[in-house]
Amino acid sequence: MNEKIGIQTIQGGVCAAEGVSASAVTAGIKESGRPDMTLIEFAPPARAAGVYTRNLVCAAPVTLCRERVGKGALRAILVNSGNANACTGKAGMADAHRLCREVAARLKCAEEEIVMSSTGLIGAPLPVDKMVAALDMLVSDLSGDGGAASAEAIMTTDTHPKEYAVSIELPDGTVRLGGMTKGAGMIAPDMATMLAYITTDADVPENILADLLRSATAESFNCVTIDGDMSTNDTVILAATGVSGVKVEGGEALARFEAGLRKVCTELALSILRDGEGVTKVVEIRIEEAADAGEARRAARSVAESLLVKTALFGGLANWGRYFAAAGYSGARVDQERMSLRIGDVRVVEGGAPVPGWEGSLAEVLKRPEYSVVLGLGVGEAKSRFWTTDISYDYVRINADYRT
Amino acid sequence: MNEKIGIQTIQGGVCAAEGVSASAVTAGIKESGRPDMTLIEFAPPARAAGVYTRNLVCAAPVTLCRERVGKGALRAILVNSGNANACTGKAGMADAHRLCREVAARLKCAEEEIVMSSTGLIGAPLPVDKMVAALDMLVSDLSGDGGAASAEAIMTTDTHPKEYAVSIELPDGTVRLGGMTKGAGMIAPDMATMLAYITTDADVPENILADLLRSATAESFNCVTIDGDMSTNDTVILAATGVSGVKVEGGEALARFEAGLRKVCTELALSILRDGEGVTKVVEIRIEEAADAGEARRAARSVAESLLVKTALFGGLANWGRYFAAAGYSGARVDQERMSLRIGDVRVVEGGAPVPGWEGSLAEVLKRPEYSVVLGLGVGEAKSRFWTTDISYDYVRINADYRT
Repeated sequence: MNEKIGIQTIQGGVCAAEGVSASAVTAGIKESGRPDMTLIEFAPPARAAGVYTRNLVCAAPVTLCRERVGKGALRAILVNSGNANACTGKAGMADAHRLCREVAARLKCAEEEIVMSSTGLIGAPLPVDKMVAALDMLVSDLSGDGGAASAEAIMTTDTHPKEYAVSIELPDGTVRLGGMTKGAGMIAPDMATMLAYITTDADVPENILADLLRSATAESFNCVTIDGDMSTNDTVILAATGVSGVKVEGGEALARFEAGLRKVCTELALSILRDGEGVTKVVEIRIEEAADAGEARRAARSVAESLLVKTALFGGLANWGRYFAAAGYSGARVDQERMSLRIGDVRVVEGGAPVPGWEGSLAEVLKRPEYSVVLGLGVGEAKSRFWTTDISYDYVRINADYRT
Repeated sequence: MNEKIGIQTIQGGVCAAEGVSASAVTAGIKESGRPDMTLIEFAPPARAAGVYTRNLVCAAPVTLCRERVGKGALRAILVNSGNANACTGKAGMADAHRLCREVAARLKCAEEEIVMSSTGLIGAPLPVDKMVAALDMLVSDLSGDGGAASAEAIMTTDTHPKEYAVSIELPDGTVRLGGMTKGAGMIAPDMATMLAYITTDADVPENILADLLRSATAESFNCVTIDGDMSTNDTVILAATGVSGVKVEGGEALARFEAGLRKVCTELALSILRDGEGVTKVVEIRIEEAADAGEARRAARSVAESLLVKTALFGGLANWGRYFAAAGYSGARVDQERMSLRIGDVRVVEGGAPVPGWEGSLAEVLKRPEYSVVLGLGVGEAKSRFWTTDISYDYVRINADYRT
């Protein structure tokens, strides 16, 4: 289907779209000496939309993004890793404002056209002087080839940079859509922050960008879970430079663009799970026969976040009762005598009772690195999908060690 | 305060009250050859109340308890370990009915006066013939000294039996109140079933028993969490023989009895946490300054169940941002700039920002096996309390291994 509508994987990550440049430096925020700041610049300034953590405890830069993104032109996004600037009170907000002001001065634009994100340790003051000192180099190094360096600079404990981009053939021409992300879960030392930046050279009105991002995020980034904890800093920004001159406002162009955006968001979200620390399994949880869409989602999330399910995935266990229990306490209605379960291609439970001989072929499925679990609730026709991971010894080790 | 109102710890567990007998056998349900069936008998038949799992997927014996407990005289409770009789369809319900009928025939009472509980593997048929064969011995061995043997027979992966009993001096005489429980969390191979049976020789009307049990459970068993998973089999039953002749219907007698019941439930609930497999820390989570009681409870539960909090407890980490984040996504209102945190006796955060020098004395607190965390949300005056544990390597090992 993707081939049919002309979506092709391309290189370039967050700089794949025309009009986007990026750069990265080591400012010294991280003790490791790895790159820890990046700047993403849009010329001309972009239209943009954002989706953020729903955590009521949120970091200063998230508050700043909420105030600025989607309210006018976006000239650049500054991102630092190594320090989350969260739980830092009024000083943290002043630091974020100062950094945006300093970037604006160097790019000769209004302060309101700059936003920033931070990820890393919570509750420590941002080393803002070091960061300001790094801005001249960030500005002078901006380049259309900077995507890979930028993706590396937002990493915390990710083992590799995460980028994905596509070209999409629309009726009036080809547009590019690309992005980068960093880990969502098990991000030591303090939080499981997920950051993602997606850019395009399509010409998309701001209100459509916001709708597209909300729906694509709901079915991708918001359907992956490693530990169920919601960060204070989670941020997804979609920015459109319009440089291609190809309008996306409705009809076939909008449908294709939406499919492309969903593809990019899903690939980025799954790349986070696959790189989750200690992860040995990535499992798709599909709920079927739910009473309505909300209950389907609730059941999928409950199963995906169950510690007993996640340890069973790690152990390669056939303890399927854990799936039923997690759906049963999710709040979704179930009909015990009509529930069913399929793991990979093995029918395990039907009509609420085990299918004779289910043990036979299951062991092979449970050894695979990725497989699907389909749980029927037996009450309706609604569906939902989540992706989850196992919980391994390494998960505990990484999250119980300080500053690893 | 407990001394002042005449509550004394006594021996005897579930048989501490007059009119209660118990017995235990090895029926061969468990592969280990350990005791796996117990019978608790009331003479005269007791008044009773029950509280059960809210999981919509529930085991056959839970359905049977819901139908019978509190609806008339209770003559005996049969409990087996090793098999949960859950996800077993209509056959499972027929098995539970048959066992109760067989017990009733031997005790020469109505079938409706007998209930049962099961804990162990999910989705396997109950070995009902073996179990019926063990009933004659269970009945003939009934004894007022059977509490310890009974507490042993309900264990699954618990490392020791869990009993607690008190005598309570009431204005009209002394009553006894005792009980036993088994583990709530990390119970391999399949589920985290919590069972508790509490008996008294006080003379308490059925409607008061139900109210007392509901409120005592809400502040004890329902406030401990190891992995947040809710079992298909959780059951708490409170039974009163009335043999003491001391009425508990209101006033001072009711207040003292309620305090005693809360004490027994809290001691039993904490004994479960302390014996949780892989548990190295038991931590009290206190929420203060919440907008209302519901939000206080929601925040306490969210913090208590956060995987990032629980791995930090294991690692002895000072990563206090995890507490703020978990409260922030709980749904409870918070005022970021007024939030506060105390760990043990160390003031860590006040007014939403770290207290200078907090690191100094914290390391010593974090090494203790038990301590309190007090999180102020800064918006109101409501409070709540949960107890939680750490998540260790052993938690993962135990729950990822089959049939250990």
